[in-house]
Amino acid sequence: MEAHSSVRVSVVQASTVFHDTPATLDKAEKLLGEAAGSGAQVVLFPEAFVGGYPHLSCFGSTMGGISQKGRREFCQYHATAIQVPGPEVDRLAAMAGKYKVDLGMGVVEKEGYTLYSTLLLFDSQGRFVGKHRKLVPSAVERVYWGRGDGSTFPVLQSPYGKIGGAIGLESRMPLLRTALYAKGVEIYFAPTTDCRPTFHATLRHVAMEGGCFVLSANQFLQEKDLPPSSSGAEEGKPDAVVCRGGSCIISPYGTVLAGPKHDGEGVLTADIDIGEIATAKIEFDVAGHYTTPSILSLTVKDQPAKTVTFTTSGAKN
Amino acid sequence: MEAHSSVRVSVVQASTVFHDTPATLDKAEKLLGEAAGSGAQVVLFPEAFVGGYPHLSCFGSTMGGISQKGRREFCQYHATAIQVPGPEVDRLAAMAGKYKVDLGMGVVEKEGYTLYSTLLLFDSQGRFVGKHRKLVPSAVERVYWGRGDGSTFPVLQSPYGKIGGAIGLESRMPLLRTALYAKGVEIYFAPTTDCRPTFHATLRHVAMEGGCFVLSANQFLQEKDLPPSSSGAEEGKPDAVVCRGGSCIISPYGTVLAGPKHDGEGVLTADIDIGEIATAKIEFDVAGHYTTPSILSLTVKDQPAKTVTFTTSGAKN
Amino acid sequence: MEAHSSVRVSVVQASTVFHDTPATLDKAEKLLGEAAGSGAQVVLFPEAFVGGYPHLSCFGSTMGGISQKGRREFCQYHATAIQVPGPEVDRLAAMAGKYKVDLGMGVVEKEGYTLYSTLLLFDSQGRFVGKHRKLVPSAVERVYWGRGDGSTFPVLQSPYGKIGGAIGLESRMPLLRTALYAKGVEIYFAPTTDCRPTFHATLRHVAMEGGCFVLSANQFLQEKDLPPSSSGAEEGKPDAVVCRGGSCIISPYGTVLAGPKHDGEGVLTADIDIGEIATAKIEFDVAGHYTTPSILSLTVKDQPAKTVTFTTSGAKN
Amino acid sequence: MEAHSSVRVSVVQASTVFHDTPATLDKAEKLLGEAAGSGAQVVLFPEAFVGGYPHLSCFGSTMGGISQKGRREFCQYHATAIQVPGPEVDRLAAMAGKYKVDLGMGVVEKEGYTLYSTLLLFDSQGRFVGKHRKLVPSAVERVYWGRGDGSTFPVLQSPYGKIGGAIGLESRMPLLRTALYAKGVEIYFAPTTDCRPTFHATLRHVAMEGGCFVLSANQFLQEKDLPPSSSGAEEGKPDAVVCRGGSCIISPYGTVLAGPKHDGEGVLTADIDIGEIATAKIEFDVAGHYTTPSILSLTVKDQPAKTVTFTTSGAKN
Amino acid sequence: MEAHSSVRVSVVQASTVFHDTPATLDKAEKLLGEAAGSGAQVVLFPEAFVGGYPHLSCFGSTMGGISQKGRREFCQYHATAIQVPGPEVDRLAAMAGKYKVDLGMGVVEKEGYTLYSTLLLFDSQGRFVGKHRKLVPSAVERVYWGRGDGSTFPVLQSPYGKIGGAIGLESRMPLLRTALYAKGVEIYFAPTTDCRPTFHATLRHVAMEGGCFVLSANQFLQEKDLPPSSSGAEEGKPDAVVCRGGSCIISPYGTVLAGPKHDGEGVLTADIDIGEIATAKIEFDVAGHYTTPSILSLTVKDQPAKTVTFTTSGAKN
Amino acid sequence: MEAHSSVRVSVVQASTVFHDTPATLDKAEKLLGEAAGSGAQVVLFPEAFVGGYPHLSCFGSTMGGISQKGRREFCQYHATAIQVPGPEVDRLAAMAGKYKVDLGMGVVEKEGYTLYSTLLLFDSQGRFVGKHRKLVPSAVERVYWGRGDGSTFPVLQSPYGKIGGAIGLESRMPLLRTALYAKGVEIYFAPTTDCRPTFHATLRHVAMEGGCFVLSANQFLQEKDLPPSSSGAEEGKPDAVVCRGGSCIISPYGTVLAGPKHDGEGVLTADIDIGEIATAKIEFDVAGHYTTPSILSLTVKDQPAKTVTFTTSGAKN
Repeated sequence: MEAHSSVRVSVVQASTVFHDTPATLDKAEKLLGEAAGSGAQVVLFPEAFVGGYPHLSCFGSTMGGISQKGRREFCQYHATAIQVPGPEVDRLAAMAGKYKVDLGMGVVEKEGYTLYSTLLLFDSQGRFVGKHRKLVPSAVERVYWGRGDGSTFPVLQSPYGKIGGAIGLESRMPLLRTALYAKGVEIYFAPTTDCRPTFHATLRHVAMEGGCFVLSANQFLQEKDLPPSSSGAEEGKPDAVVCRGGSCIISPYGTVLAGPKHDGEGVLTADIDIGEIATAKIEFDVAGHYTTPSILSLTVKDQPAKTVTFTTSGAKN
Repeated sequence: MEAHSSVRVSVVQASTVFHDTPATLDKAEKLLGEAAGSGAQVVLFPEAFVGGYPHLSCFGSTMGGISQKGRREFCQYHATAIQVPGPEVDRLAAMAGKYKVDLGMGVVEKEGYTLYSTLLLFDSQGRFVGKHRKLVPSAVERVYWGRGDGSTFPVLQSPYGKIGGAIGLESRMPLLRTALYAKGVEIYFAPTTDCRPTFHATLRHVAMEGGCFVLSANQFLQEKDLPPSSSGAEEGKPDAVVCRGGSCIISPYGTVLAGPKHDGEGVLTADIDIGEIATAKIEFDVAGHYTTPSILSLTVKDQPAKTVTFTTSGAKN
Repeated sequence: MEAHSSVRVSVVQASTVFHDTPATLDKAEKLLGEAAGSGAQVVLFPEAFVGGYPHLSCFGSTMGGISQKGRREFCQYHATAIQVPGPEVDRLAAMAGKYKVDLGMGVVEKEGYTLYSTLLLFDSQGRFVGKHRKLVPSAVERVYWGRGDGSTFPVLQSPYGKIGGAIGLESRMPLLRTALYAKGVEIYFAPTTDCRPTFHATLRHVAMEGGCFVLSANQFLQEKDLPPSSSGAEEGKPDAVVCRGGSCIISPYGTVLAGPKHDGEGVLTADIDIGEIATAKIEFDVAGHYTTPSILSLTVKDQPAKTVTFTTSGAKN
Repeated sequence: MEAHSSVRVSVVQASTVFHDTPATLDKAEKLLGEAAGSGAQVVLFPEAFVGGYPHLSCFGSTMGGISQKGRREFCQYHATAIQVPGPEVDRLAAMAGKYKVDLGMGVVEKEGYTLYSTLLLFDSQGRFVGKHRKLVPSAVERVYWGRGDGSTFPVLQSPYGKIGGAIGLESRMPLLRTALYAKGVEIYFAPTTDCRPTFHATLRHVAMEGGCFVLSANQFLQEKDLPPSSSGAEEGKPDAVVCRGGSCIISPYGTVLAGPKHDGEGVLTADIDIGEIATAKIEFDVAGHYTTPSILSLTVKDQPAKTVTFTTSGAKN
Repeated sequence: MEAHSSVRVSVVQASTVFHDTPATLDKAEKLLGEAAGSGAQVVLFPEAFVGGYPHLSCFGSTMGGISQKGRREFCQYHATAIQVPGPEVDRLAAMAGKYKVDLGMGVVEKEGYTLYSTLLLFDSQGRFVGKHRKLVPSAVERVYWGRGDGSTFPVLQSPYGKIGGAIGLESRMPLLRTALYAKGVEIYFAPTTDCRPTFHATLRHVAMEGGCFVLSANQFLQEKDLPPSSSGAEEGKPDAVVCRGGSCIISPYGTVLAGPKHDGEGVLTADIDIGEIATAKIEFDVAGHYTTPSILSLTVKDQPAKTVTFTTSGAKN
Repeated sequence: MEAHSSVRVSVVQASTVFHDTPATLDKAEKLLGEAAGSGAQVVLFPEAFVGGYPHLSCFGSTMGGISQKGRREFCQYHATAIQVPGPEVDRLAAMAGKYKVDLGMGVVEKEGYTLYSTLLLFDSQGRFVGKHRKLVPSAVERVYWGRGDGSTFPVLQSPYGKIGGAIGLESRMPLLRTALYAKGVEIYFAPTTDCRPTFHATLRHVAMEGGCFVLSANQFLQEKDLPPSSSGAEEGKPDAVVCRGGSCIISPYGTVLAGPKHDGEGVLTADIDIGEIATAKIEFDVAGHYTTPSILSLTVKDQPAKTVTFTTSGAKN
């Protein structure tokens, strides 16, 4: 619940190696090694780092149809997504243990034939702690990603404090954030694909509202990083910036400790003083002295949402 | 539950007057008048007839962004959507009463700033009976349309039997259909935007599975019918067919009584014998002698899904 | 969960050797050898292939009575049915292993004095995987066959994907299909005795609804194939077709890859691309992104249904 | 729910005339006249404008005690607070009607011997529409102000859209904001006493989260504006700035249309396009397509909280 | 709700003229005149001043019996009690009007054959405002006095503040006091017959707990004031003090402004500053900022308690 | 409910060792040893004895702000607060067991980042029995302490009678006391920080109203006992008395058996006769013969008040 010493935290701003999950994991390991080499104890990667975020693409979909080319693109995309648990998850867990880092990793998860934007949490002893699936995908994401349910709000109890997370515009969902606050999140992971200044404003607010440190990681992506088939890419401009990052680290006072970084790939690092949470919450404690449970109360249905229940096994879906 | 006499039913295959809801309602009235003039007692219009279905458009959305042009297009689209209840609903109810027709009308509904694909039901006495909101929009629709909840499964108790409906690919959702069957639907409205033969195969199956008459109405749409800004339209081919209709009327035996029509706008009409339902269900009664409630049981949560409940009023959302 | 390579699948359209189970098993082995010889890796036989489906007979039953002759006929029929497990099951398992085929076989099962229409599944290593008993027999079947319970929904996890099945008009039961979809069925066995085009329409729908490959096998049966005592047979027309088959293989897009075959006995074969499931489910995933578990949820009671429970043993029905 | 035309809105940045409520109301009328003279149709005044916010004072309170001097100061403060309804409310209503302005006014309300920070809403026809009492006062405010209950969440249905409000750090309470969003607030009043940039960051977030226009009004206060007895005032620095304002107007995109003003008293004005709400909510609609009622649901107990209930009358407190 | 000027208040310490109600009323008028002559604006008389409190008597009652002598004594006592309303009430109202005093008077009320200890309230315009009947008589009082119900909690809205009252040990009943506090009582009448220092301690507490001025009036009674038959009187000690008074006036800070008087009959007077209520309630406001309605809530059933209800008239007990 | 023998009870008047919780616990153990050495069987310590009560400080807070120095002071204060349960609680339980004493201990509790004034109860067998959190902090306490809910009203069933408690001005809350009376409290713990004679008057009243023994413990505190940074301390007067104690022991008759002590730290002891409760309640039994449940009824909502409920676990907050 509390921690007094300083902690070094990093956010990784880097792009997926598209359509090549093993290479993406290699890249993750290299970057994680760099961060750990600088002393980082907590590290966050961007949303969909494993699996990729096909900026500019809409897989050939329009109202009323989807092209065959789009279907084939999606099929490749589906193939690079990972199952949780699974061998890629094992590899990520091993990395976290090797570098003794509490790790958050954005992945594209597949279950059956549906994909999800998922944040995986690993502790510094190399254990997979849990996953959070994005509840409500944004805009075109809704065509390709399914919706999470309330059963995936894990909290990683690190030696420095509780770590939880929300993906992309979930950080703009007040009830979802309140669920995280109620779990006592002290380091708030905000992997995203949104590089706009408006999202940065939201992140500053979240840090102050939640009285927590916010770590946000986004990809820095140029045309050349996208798959060649990517429908929205401009011909002949391989260096054009498609997603300009904006990764950052913010304190509970809303002070931006590092970033927002817009100049390329890289690792941002800051030393954070967990003790600041207590001084910040004197004034405003969203899950403590500022609650009004007799007036405003939130119910989080955190059972898995099952369409079909088999009475003997509570089986899948 | 049963009716022996013959009933004349029609499905209207026609396109929206884009961005002009009053003109679309005028067109609806003209076509309804035609159908009634031919003796139709039950009439169905296509999905999103009021409000329109912007085929080929994706409002400038791609993974990670939406263009300003797309936002402006959406704004126009939002402006042509209607509130339920509201003056357009009143006008439609009056039409149904004037022509003494049990009427199903596909509309784009707005509540607050979210849109829904909604089927409105009116009876032949000019009353608005209820609405059904599409539960799960398809593909790019998900970017622009919200999701209905379980509270809108109305049944119109006509003199000829019970009328209910499902919109577009909802007819491929087995649990949703089962909910309709459980309500005793005898005339099944299937407004859609899907003109493919595969959807026609589904409609035949539904008629047999449900032991009901299926009426399906779709728009017939050429390039020239789309708004000029429509992002996917091909230049210089105003007569190119964007959506080739496929409206039809099918009996509980799976016999296609009219259509599928692919040659333009028009009104399809058939005389149906409600008594066939009884003879068809001798063999298979999906909600009767073919049920196994001790093994397979469906729960339909048909309360309104409210994110926020005000205890004194149970107010909106 | 997924498979990328092409798989060769076959459906066998052939009739039972009535009242002679060993001969029927010989015939099964011959046909299975043929299919395997053509490279088939997955093979399905018709409903009640072992035991037989006495078309045209009603075993002397009328409303209010059953004749002594009918009783004797039924007795013979009962004698040709098999027990599960039992020696005939062992022989079938051995065949599957010998030909390295994942096999589905329709049989008439007896337990005590009650008969069931049962689908047996065997894997390519010669193991009996499980059985599915028809839940709701159709029409006159109800006089001679009992009802299965929810405990027999086996899934064969083949190297190519999950295989499950439904018998006859079970394919028209939306909740039963949903249970199979929830188990992740990718190759859907539909043994049947129904040769009508309406059933074919249902099969196409099922393939699209379930996003799975549908294999359907039926008997091709002439008067001469029926037992001489068969009450409904027309004198002197041994070549008259009693059941014209209609076996077929359909893709998740609803494309008919083989059949429907109506011209005699034979083996239908097709190469299927399991990868098509992923591209088809982009648009519609009945157990994934198209579910609405908070609105529509199915409960499958899959314990054995026991009429009598002995408290010390939890023993059988 | 919707409005297409432009609306001129103003926020007034000015200080209370301490200990002189009639003079404060005169000042309010003068400033309101100015705003209306510039065409303002909607006007907001700061928190506690009527009654005052005794910056730097703590009324002589420390842990364990309150000085006699502090008690006397509080007594004066109590005397300048107003009852709702009451003559001061009537005067404010008349002002709103005279200048045809939808008006929000921050006041210190007294009921019995307890004070509240209250936002009053008046419509342009001169009617008092309702009041909102701050639910959780901040820091030292808790010593002098009571807590509101859930019964005061009024919404002013103006010709331009729905107007509601939250006071001071209430804008950092996610559940309270969600209650306002659920009521459909389109113009969000945020009267405050907080002039820090961190609060400004919160206001930008709220505009984007809620998809609404945010109007925030704060006092600009110098030492000379405080009562002479004010315990925290510095001797001999009458022009020292105690509260540097920061009033502003923000669009649903998070764009700051006017302010933050830090250079003195004054009226900020902007023309807002209510239509922007629709284009902003395409992407994120906090009370519409971004809700997950089956997972996250908020209950607002909006009955008055009564400690004592007299059964015949439901009487006070 | 509030009053800023000073008010002069008096409590009368005097004994009943036993068995002579007209003489008692004369004595009341004389004492009221004295008080008013000294400027008193609010005056309280003791419990049972009209009708008398037969100290030392138990009307011949013991466990298991009552003597004939006791019965005769009670009969006399019953005869001197008054009906409300009635001529004695009219006379008291006239006195209040004549001397322009807000008046509280303790009486023995009779309704049918049951007696009650009742506090009557009159305003300075000569109107009878209401009565409060003691809810729970003490000890032997229970033998001769009935119990009031919840319908008699009148509040006199004087120009100086709200006046209410509780009789005798009712001031030790926390829920009854809370009902008075909820009505906003600012001047709390505590007529009594209890002259012990322990009761005085309770009165000081009540003033602080309720944040109100407490006026307590008791009789000063010697042996000679009792009826001759009085069973408990000591022979030959006419000057012996039976009840030594203890009347007093206490501020909301618990400061004793006048009394406790123990030296004989007389009128105690004090000037009270109603403004002190506000300064006292800064710290503790029992019906305001110190309530916890979501945790502790009191229900006061203030309908008349009727044993018999006639359905046509809703008539009296 | 009752106990006849005499019990020796003590109240400890002593100050916290500021910012040193282990030293405070050592001091507690020393004082508890002393009390037990004198034969005490029941011992009460002051409010906030563990954690401390920063008299004269307001942590740099004024209306509208909090200084950085104040925040740092608060941080130290937060650090000395304890979690319940936790190691300090274990140590206190062990002390109670070691000295065979029923123990009440005032502590500053922390949960997350919010503090509470909490009374801990331990029995003479060394068990932690329960905690009571102050419902409504007083004045400046509200800035630094949160509010308890109705779930913490423990009663320690000692061999001598039921022990419960209320903290500080809670003893002036009539509904809260009534809840304790309803639980049958016989020894009423009143730890406090209020050394004024007015609070002593309240304590005497409570003893009589509740018919219970009241034990009140307060700190005796000089300038030198406060932390050096304490904002309100006077320079150069280390011996100045900041809080002069007032601890005492009172009988159900309102008789003060020991104290109020104002001359320094120390342990007050008295032998109490539990049998007196019965004789005192003959006259007045607040939870027995003096109740009027048909008129005045109190509801205590004693469920935990949760802002966020997770449906699977009913989790924290």
